[in-house]
Amino acid sequence: MLDCEAALARASASEGLIPEDAAQAIVAACTEGQFDPAVIGQQAAASATPVIPLVSALREQVGAAYAPYVHLGATSQDIIDSAAMLIAKRALLPLLADARAAADAAAVLADVHRVTPMAGRTLLQDALPTSFGLRAAGWLIGIEEAAARLAEVAAKRLAVQMGGPVGSRPPQVAARVAAELGLAEPTLPWQAVRVRVAELAGALGALAGILGKVARDVTLLAADEVGEVRERTASGRGGSSAMPHKQNPVAAVSVIACANRVPGLVATLLATMLQEHERAAGSWQAEWGTLSELLGLVGSAAAWGRELLEGLEVVPERMRENLERLAAAGVSEAAAPLDHLEGAGELIDRALAAREPR
Amino acid sequence: MLDCEAALARASASEGLIPEDAAQAIVAACTEGQFDPAVIGQQAAASATPVIPLVSALREQVGAAYAPYVHLGATSQDIIDSAAMLIAKRALLPLLADARAAADAAAVLADVHRVTPMAGRTLLQDALPTSFGLRAAGWLIGIEEAAARLAEVAAKRLAVQMGGPVGSRPPQVAARVAAELGLAEPTLPWQAVRVRVAELAGALGALAGILGKVARDVTLLAADEVGEVRERTASGRGGSSAMPHKQNPVAAVSVIACANRVPGLVATLLATMLQEHERAAGSWQAEWGTLSELLGLVGSAAAWGRELLEGLEVVPERMRENLERLAAAGVSEAAAPLDHLEGAGELIDRALAAREPR
Amino acid sequence: MLDCEAALARASASEGLIPEDAAQAIVAACTEGQFDPAVIGQQAAASATPVIPLVSALREQVGAAYAPYVHLGATSQDIIDSAAMLIAKRALLPLLADARAAADAAAVLADVHRVTPMAGRTLLQDALPTSFGLRAAGWLIGIEEAAARLAEVAAKRLAVQMGGPVGSRPPQVAARVAAELGLAEPTLPWQAVRVRVAELAGALGALAGILGKVARDVTLLAADEVGEVRERTASGRGGSSAMPHKQNPVAAVSVIACANRVPGLVATLLATMLQEHERAAGSWQAEWGTLSELLGLVGSAAAWGRELLEGLEVVPERMRENLERLAAAGVSEAAAPLDHLEGAGELIDRALAAREPR
Amino acid sequence: MLDCEAALARASASEGLIPEDAAQAIVAACTEGQFDPAVIGQQAAASATPVIPLVSALREQVGAAYAPYVHLGATSQDIIDSAAMLIAKRALLPLLADARAAADAAAVLADVHRVTPMAGRTLLQDALPTSFGLRAAGWLIGIEEAAARLAEVAAKRLAVQMGGPVGSRPPQVAARVAAELGLAEPTLPWQAVRVRVAELAGALGALAGILGKVARDVTLLAADEVGEVRERTASGRGGSSAMPHKQNPVAAVSVIACANRVPGLVATLLATMLQEHERAAGSWQAEWGTLSELLGLVGSAAAWGRELLEGLEVVPERMRENLERLAAAGVSEAAAPLDHLEGAGELIDRALAAREPR
Repeated sequence: MLDCEAALARASASEGLIPEDAAQAIVAACTEGQFDPAVIGQQAAASATPVIPLVSALREQVGAAYAPYVHLGATSQDIIDSAAMLIAKRALLPLLADARAAADAAAVLADVHRVTPMAGRTLLQDALPTSFGLRAAGWLIGIEEAAARLAEVAAKRLAVQMGGPVGSRPPQVAARVAAELGLAEPTLPWQAVRVRVAELAGALGALAGILGKVARDVTLLAADEVGEVRERTASGRGGSSAMPHKQNPVAAVSVIACANRVPGLVATLLATMLQEHERAAGSWQAEWGTLSELLGLVGSAAAWGRELLEGLEVVPERMRENLERLAAAGVSEAAAPLDHLEGAGELIDRALAAREPR
Repeated sequence: MLDCEAALARASASEGLIPEDAAQAIVAACTEGQFDPAVIGQQAAASATPVIPLVSALREQVGAAYAPYVHLGATSQDIIDSAAMLIAKRALLPLLADARAAADAAAVLADVHRVTPMAGRTLLQDALPTSFGLRAAGWLIGIEEAAARLAEVAAKRLAVQMGGPVGSRPPQVAARVAAELGLAEPTLPWQAVRVRVAELAGALGALAGILGKVARDVTLLAADEVGEVRERTASGRGGSSAMPHKQNPVAAVSVIACANRVPGLVATLLATMLQEHERAAGSWQAEWGTLSELLGLVGSAAAWGRELLEGLEVVPERMRENLERLAAAGVSEAAAPLDHLEGAGELIDRALAAREPR
Repeated sequence: MLDCEAALARASASEGLIPEDAAQAIVAACTEGQFDPAVIGQQAAASATPVIPLVSALREQVGAAYAPYVHLGATSQDIIDSAAMLIAKRALLPLLADARAAADAAAVLADVHRVTPMAGRTLLQDALPTSFGLRAAGWLIGIEEAAARLAEVAAKRLAVQMGGPVGSRPPQVAARVAAELGLAEPTLPWQAVRVRVAELAGALGALAGILGKVARDVTLLAADEVGEVRERTASGRGGSSAMPHKQNPVAAVSVIACANRVPGLVATLLATMLQEHERAAGSWQAEWGTLSELLGLVGSAAAWGRELLEGLEVVPERMRENLERLAAAGVSEAAAPLDHLEGAGELIDRALAAREPR
Repeated sequence: MLDCEAALARASASEGLIPEDAAQAIVAACTEGQFDPAVIGQQAAASATPVIPLVSALREQVGAAYAPYVHLGATSQDIIDSAAMLIAKRALLPLLADARAAADAAAVLADVHRVTPMAGRTLLQDALPTSFGLRAAGWLIGIEEAAARLAEVAAKRLAVQMGGPVGSRPPQVAARVAAELGLAEPTLPWQAVRVRVAELAGALGALAGILGKVARDVTLLAADEVGEVRERTASGRGGSSAMPHKQNPVAAVSVIACANRVPGLVATLLATMLQEHERAAGSWQAEWGTLSELLGLVGSAAAWGRELLEGLEVVPERMRENLERLAAAGVSEAAAPLDHLEGAGELIDRALAAREPR
């Protein structure tokens, strides 16, 4: 929020709305000033917005001479929405880096295990042979596609808000603040038009879902009865408080735990789109904590997903053993699985070729 | 599903996998054959898929000679997923047409009421004057953006599924089926990688949300105390079973009723992304009815939203009266609102200019 | 809805508000009259309620003399809410019977397999031995508890609605209609106070969730690598369109498919509780289809869950084999599992003793 | 969690499983020991559970002699689930006190405004006269019913978990721990049978929903055009950062902001019921943060709801003015509203009589 107030001050000076020295004083206070989030949080309850106590504290810091130039022409929502988009933009940097690293690790698995035969399974029943590389190529494509959409949202849809009390402020200041903050410039102020938030939420939800799919596969393949993969872990990880023989798939469990919490939060951000008039009475405020949670959870899912895929150990011999069971059940393809993996190889090549350039 | 089986037959013939006359017989049976959905539905319970009884009925229709060429190399999921995407594609045609017509109607309102002053309202309290045109421009931009994203999903992300039992079938047949059906060709079969479904759901959710926002605004502005808009309706519409004096905002209520049901369905489609192995045991099947409901509800929301916006009557004199109350409360801007609408006009121009070419 | 109009007519006659012969005529028309749901549905769009065309058709059926006595003092919401509660009450009869039969089947499994050793599994990893009977006892208790709560809601919380246009009608007619329909009498009309709907939704959600847990366990235990249970099925059930060797766990998959769709619907019914004034503009109407879906899905989950549990085959020898793997991993308890099942037996006795009398 | 370990130590000593002095040492360490939540949180990532580092720290505190008696026979889930239920129990105390105080305030409004006429409104349109007291009685009944159910869950369904690694521990220790902690004793360990959590979530969801309904009504009635109620606030509350004339309904907005976030969280807790085997790989862990959020949000909603209702100012003269508009529209009941409020009075008496004794 302070970065937004600072950007507003710089933009206002550039537009000649406030003196240059006022802008400098405000920027300095935003950067170096002392603000106590706990106090501001407490005071926020009196107005249902943290911006009022923040602006008040900021005015105090800049002193009486510059105080009138603080927050000029802006409304609480300008600062909160711009800050939320800025936080999202910043959070998406490591989140997307982790997602792409997870995709890279899946690509390596796809490439290395191109013709490592394993039992394909449908409805949790043995089906026909496939290759582990093809499974990993599916993970790769899923993560790539979800990350590509999220990157697009990050680049184009995270826009500044700077419309003033009722969203009617002309666009010049908004354009400058957008440039200052590295956010997009919206066509209009979007105070109660929350399509951007919905797009961000939807893209985060899709990425969490595909990471959860990878993790679910790993928990199943790592089950003792299957034993086809395991998490390669730092010594001591995955221990149990009661069962020393266990090696729990900690990263996969953590991805699933995060991913399971995401759909409800996305639904909240869609349900709160029905915002009244120029600023909603409650459904806007409900976004704040929800978006924070969502970014945190998908960020964690991506970090754990990267760790999971980068450290995944594959056990081809167990894959072969499990295929023998399928062969014993009379499935001829399982007896000579390599004869049936040509399609898989061609598909893996397509998946590897389709990746976004890094 | 029959269209998908027909396309598969044509594609298989083109690839030389089945004789041309077999393809013709299958296509003919798919087009002209008699299938009883109720019977197929009932039989579907035995296998948790309608494709088994459908293929069985189709084989019966084409006769013993051609029966082996029906459904060749395909699995139930190929047909169900391709059919789901085909249904989505078809459903999105009228849905997007309605959404764009709703946007067109909002554009007219924005243009006509460029300088029609009204009270901007935040937290349901009078704030400062704005113009009704700017409110309508916000609706316009929101619907445009959500429809643009949905159109993109429709064009690029609705892909055929044709991977065979475990998703390892080489891509040639899939490419031909995609062309036949007018669907995208996926990089890989996407059996348990449901990013596409999630993107469709997210885009539908965003459109429903913004339509709901428009409708909520209308219910509030149409309240007797406000009286600034009303639904222009066919005679007799909006009546009450007990109160003859009432004129209910039927279209707005219907949009909200649809929009309220959407976030939970989107959450279901995100939550069911954690699909096991090559085909999930339950979470895939949960998509079927959910996606149908979702398409139906957002389609209804778009149709009602179009009717709402195309028939919206604006009452500028009530807007002026309500502004007088604000002026009486000492808000100077409300006393001469036209002086404060320059920004609004500039913003409306931007909104009108930003529209996608029709 | 016709049952509700008939009950209202009888109640109105008992209260001396309409002549006895009018009541008889209305009841007769409600019972024997011809109404076309498709036409009424179409006409409903004009008023956002099916009650207006229904009442109009009913008035036509009874003729001009009795028409004024139809729907006397009632509003659309009285009929729709009372009908919804009546439908819920009726739907819960077979639903609860199925749930209790599922619990009965789980009780038999718990009793029979009291000391059938199996590997307890945590985080999908082998943990320590338990007995399959204890697993089944957990299913039993979960279904029993969820069904007991749902039965309580059915008995006490499904109340008539009969408050007139704004919910201010005195309670006498409501009391009589409640008695006629076998529904509870509310303290007040509950037009926009939807706690009853929320309680019904919550109880349905909990039952779906526990049935889904049972089904998830079955899909995992029925996986070929585990092989500890399988669905006993009519010949031919569980087949695959492409893989004749497969025997899919159809009932378990169907339970999960239903259960996965429930949480989003429950969330919708909670989110739509924020209903405006005396009758909501959209959030009430959103309940209608949602509640129907919810009842249908949980009813299906219960029917499939019963079939699943009544037909579950247990394979103790596979359970022993899987335990040997755990013993081989050095887990001493797995070498002599029976020595460790005393607690399980005592717990199973508690579970069987805690069941509701049938 | 420390309270749970302490209770377990006491229970174990009572059962003769550990020496009395070991129990005392453990209890002392749990009460007075120094534990760094940040460090434990960080270490928790290695095992996907905070219990392992907590137990390790606790063992260190009690020293080598007593270390083996710490956490005896328990598993991580025993401590986490018991702690979650304990936290819920404690959180529900102020939460239910606030909810009941809100109901008390609604009761006063119902009583005082028994015959204060106001326009009943349906679909946001003027309908017929009612009394403000009847509206408040509806709020009262809704809050009472939701709080009563939540109190029942608090008293009967928040149970200890103490089943050991796979839930097969005999019930004696669990019974003693339950008594120590003031929690219910379950029939069986309920490790992957989450009906209790679902019931808690459902009851919290219903209370949040009805509080949200009250708050939505207040935002609508407090709109400047309606002006029938306003929040009585400490000086300065409800201010705007840009519009000094505004008095925002801060408490109502805050209730709605909290309530809007609840349905998605309830859905998460229902969706995560499909937990595998004896302990789930991810869906259990997803509960932790979700339940914390849920308790916090409904607690906040109740606190703000109480403040809202205790401080609500009613403006009968504006209610009368608004009724005059309805009378002018030809609604005869609006001309002499008091003649139509008999039913309302009788209903209010019922609502006041139906309250739970405090």
